[in-house]
Amino acid sequence: MTSDKKTAVLLIHCPDQQGILASVTQFLNENNGNIIYLDQNVDRAESIFFMRVEWELELFAIPKDKIADYFETLIARRYNIRFTIHFSDEKPRMALFVSKMSHCLFDILARHMAGEWIVDIPLIISNHNDLKPIAERFGIEFYYIPKNSSNKEEQEAKEVGLLTEMKIDFIVLGRYMQVLSDKFVSQFPNRIINIHHSFLPAFAGAKPYHAAHERGVKIIGATSHYVTADLDAGPIIAQDVVRISHVDSIESLVRKGRDLEKIVLSEAVYKHLQRKILVFNNRTIIFN
Amino acid sequence: MTSDKKTAVLLIHCPDQQGILASVTQFLNENNGNIIYLDQNVDRAESIFFMRVEWELELFAIPKDKIADYFETLIARRYNIRFTIHFSDEKPRMALFVSKMSHCLFDILARHMAGEWIVDIPLIISNHNDLKPIAERFGIEFYYIPKNSSNKEEQEAKEVGLLTEMKIDFIVLGRYMQVLSDKFVSQFPNRIINIHHSFLPAFAGAKPYHAAHERGVKIIGATSHYVTADLDAGPIIAQDVVRISHVDSIESLVRKGRDLEKIVLSEAVYKHLQRKILVFNNRTIIFN
Amino acid sequence: MTSDKKTAVLLIHCPDQQGILASVTQFLNENNGNIIYLDQNVDRAESIFFMRVEWELELFAIPKDKIADYFETLIARRYNIRFTIHFSDEKPRMALFVSKMSHCLFDILARHMAGEWIVDIPLIISNHNDLKPIAERFGIEFYYIPKNSSNKEEQEAKEVGLLTEMKIDFIVLGRYMQVLSDKFVSQFPNRIINIHHSFLPAFAGAKPYHAAHERGVKIIGATSHYVTADLDAGPIIAQDVVRISHVDSIESLVRKGRDLEKIVLSEAVYKHLQRKILVFNNRTIIFN
Amino acid sequence: MTSDKKTAVLLIHCPDQQGILASVTQFLNENNGNIIYLDQNVDRAESIFFMRVEWELELFAIPKDKIADYFETLIARRYNIRFTIHFSDEKPRMALFVSKMSHCLFDILARHMAGEWIVDIPLIISNHNDLKPIAERFGIEFYYIPKNSSNKEEQEAKEVGLLTEMKIDFIVLGRYMQVLSDKFVSQFPNRIINIHHSFLPAFAGAKPYHAAHERGVKIIGATSHYVTADLDAGPIIAQDVVRISHVDSIESLVRKGRDLEKIVLSEAVYKHLQRKILVFNNRTIIFN
Repeated sequence: MTSDKKTAVLLIHCPDQQGILASVTQFLNENNGNIIYLDQNVDRAESIFFMRVEWELELFAIPKDKIADYFETLIARRYNIRFTIHFSDEKPRMALFVSKMSHCLFDILARHMAGEWIVDIPLIISNHNDLKPIAERFGIEFYYIPKNSSNKEEQEAKEVGLLTEMKIDFIVLGRYMQVLSDKFVSQFPNRIINIHHSFLPAFAGAKPYHAAHERGVKIIGATSHYVTADLDAGPIIAQDVVRISHVDSIESLVRKGRDLEKIVLSEAVYKHLQRKILVFNNRTIIFN
Repeated sequence: MTSDKKTAVLLIHCPDQQGILASVTQFLNENNGNIIYLDQNVDRAESIFFMRVEWELELFAIPKDKIADYFETLIARRYNIRFTIHFSDEKPRMALFVSKMSHCLFDILARHMAGEWIVDIPLIISNHNDLKPIAERFGIEFYYIPKNSSNKEEQEAKEVGLLTEMKIDFIVLGRYMQVLSDKFVSQFPNRIINIHHSFLPAFAGAKPYHAAHERGVKIIGATSHYVTADLDAGPIIAQDVVRISHVDSIESLVRKGRDLEKIVLSEAVYKHLQRKILVFNNRTIIFN
Repeated sequence: MTSDKKTAVLLIHCPDQQGILASVTQFLNENNGNIIYLDQNVDRAESIFFMRVEWELELFAIPKDKIADYFETLIARRYNIRFTIHFSDEKPRMALFVSKMSHCLFDILARHMAGEWIVDIPLIISNHNDLKPIAERFGIEFYYIPKNSSNKEEQEAKEVGLLTEMKIDFIVLGRYMQVLSDKFVSQFPNRIINIHHSFLPAFAGAKPYHAAHERGVKIIGATSHYVTADLDAGPIIAQDVVRISHVDSIESLVRKGRDLEKIVLSEAVYKHLQRKILVFNNRTIIFN
Repeated sequence: MTSDKKTAVLLIHCPDQQGILASVTQFLNENNGNIIYLDQNVDRAESIFFMRVEWELELFAIPKDKIADYFETLIARRYNIRFTIHFSDEKPRMALFVSKMSHCLFDILARHMAGEWIVDIPLIISNHNDLKPIAERFGIEFYYIPKNSSNKEEQEAKEVGLLTEMKIDFIVLGRYMQVLSDKFVSQFPNRIINIHHSFLPAFAGAKPYHAAHERGVKIIGATSHYVTADLDAGPIIAQDVVRISHVDSIESLVRKGRDLEKIVLSEAVYKHLQRKILVFNNRTIIFN
């Protein structure tokens, strides 16, 4: 994680069979790939094998741009493996969608600026102008793209244009408060991270703090998840909770929730950047 | 809490008005009631005043059996107060309903036996015979009252008969797994405590661990609540959670959940015994 | 809490005696002070009474600048009460001391800017120049006051000069990493808030994450406390923890700890601003 | 974990080198050992490789009693591996040491009786007679072995005699409250599990709840660890915490702590029974 050497990360899943782990590690080993991290897991109920392996590229015999091809031919076919490969020297590019609340925005920009994350953030998109001064303060381009029921399709097209032009890899919704269309979402599968201000699946939908107060729960939460066509039902990446009591008004739930939201969202972004997430059957495997 | 002196506990709620707190404390003070505990709270949104006050009876000028009458006449009427009074020297009587799982049963009996709780447990009722040997081991009468769709009404009548005969104050459902009829429930308002094996309102209903696994949540929970006619929707008393991951099978959720369930249920019973719970609008106020 | 009306807050402690609560509430009541919040507690072991009461000033019969005098004369003397009074319309002024790490600084400035806190932050002091650009970005004056073993006394004198000139009410050490002299500390009793990056009293002193890793604990924490002459031993205001495992390197403890540190420090500052903290015998009473 | 098939568990550590993982998995694979679980981890700072692997014995080509020998010859020597092997069909035998408090005892016996754990508990040893009735109720032999400063050595000898005679594999101290001699401890390395009623290393030694109250912490904890010659300093297995406040008296800390203690101790015993713990440099690796 703190190694400065260039590494490759391989994320794998396939039907569980004897010998997969041995084959993969042998493949890396024989080609002088020094494994610096390996985490694997078998879902017994569904009989699926999952693995994340990271190795140093320095002495690796196979050139970077041929690894996928070789792995496909020599290993993946045999075991019916589906995989993705990522390289530590390719910095992901992230777009940030926000609305009026600043806590998630600040938390993300502060981490970015402090070098906590290896990521580029070339643009911020918002349907309100409120947070533009913050974007400017951090020297990030801010696009004001207001939406209403009649212009949603064209505004989303404008957004997709910008995202494409800027070569954006993934999107973070920092309390964006707008529902993205299925069409938009389908262009970024498992590449849009949202924060929902409740412990999903409890209190999906609007005004979860009001609903939590009404129900009289003793704990509230926040949930970060990949966005899918089905609102608030995408694969959960991270959750956290905080105790409350009858003393808490809705305002104090909102206050306590803000801290949860920003930390849980940033945790999800961090895992995504670390390539530690694999999605299967609308659930996430979060490697160690 | 650990005082051996006899005390009275007054639980109050009423529309919030100036002067209530001063009046109540003055009433106790003037009559030589030494207040050893006071917790009050105002729900600003609904403008309701809640209070729990406990005082020593030793030097209190008003005889125990006349306190309710005096308080009603001198204070409650003026402020439109609804109240209950409880006395520390009256040991509550609890019935325990169980099914086949023993973890909640053991946890409760162990606390009872160790003197953690001031309570009598004269009977255990079950729709299965499995836990009878444990009841016998602890010297508590065990009633086997099996239920099916056709005999539910008469079996519940038998249960109510036993509960009445044994002068039971409140009922604890220690993973009882049977739905009680509205008729039964209505006879014990805010006096039946259940443990639901999820973080309500998430995963109400049957098989919550399966549902939690299916949804891929990262945290599971347990919820103790008073039973109302609306299943799994009664006032929540206590909740707790534990982190899980993709590594956990349904079996390991069940295992981890058991520990939550027994602790959360016992916490609710303890609060109930301490007279620290006031129910209002299907929510609980849990005093400190 | 969210009322826009002007209020006064009274923080009290005294030897526990019968009648205090009735006397105080009656005093406010008789003078038309509408109590909007009251929390009290008795330390049975030491027989000390603690209370925080907040009331609206609008119709209160006693003028703001005479409340302390009247309360002293009419109530405090009788019960040997020690008290402080604060007014919601007097905005506290805070100084921020930082070093090289930006996470606490950003968290505090973001809250300030978003209006989460009612506070003025006229200056930031640091022994390094690293965070100056951030201060400038937020439009706050930044004073670079480097310290070494030979100039500490004079540099602290310079700091005290600035703090006095700027009418600073309290100081927040956002990972300042310098030990303040007893002389300095004694001028701001219970008015300097520090964040220590461990679950105190475990791992007091330098390099707590290294120590935690060495000891092999399964949970790490952060502790905010008022600074006293005795390093890392002042009254604890807030603590929080996060689970770790053998998988975590020191670097990942540092990463996880940062999130704890900023949240726990900000929680402490919030409580301080809300006047919800009373210090007694090197411990804090944190009112609800 | 829930497989009924017979399995072997191999726990390994060695200097980190390229190829270990491939070699071990290949060894199992070639001999028809179906791997059902594998977790490995490298301590980068110390360059040590750790692994736990579990595989089915049914079709495994090497007979059970020769596995250790073969593994030593074919693999372990090459990589300087230290290892232990355990078999799922060999039920561990546990001795329970208790004193006067029953909460840990009940929790353990309840789990044992409910079949949560695969373990035999042939005897309970105590320096007091208080819990004898509970042992009898569960049909377990109870040995009353009182100790004082003058008879400690001979009483411990008696205990060791019993433990040897009963073929005890490991010992659980369920709030035993006696310090075992170095001589005793050295006979059961990493095979005595203790529960300390604090969040170690905070409040090691006697009366931790008093110390926690005195220090004014906002969170208390419990710690299970293997016992070493150095009191309260052995490798930590599990820890958990609960929030407290100034409202909590020492008595309520004790009450809340009891629940932590029993759950944390039982968690440690469970991990031990699952062979999920490896001790290295006075720290534990707890496999998933």
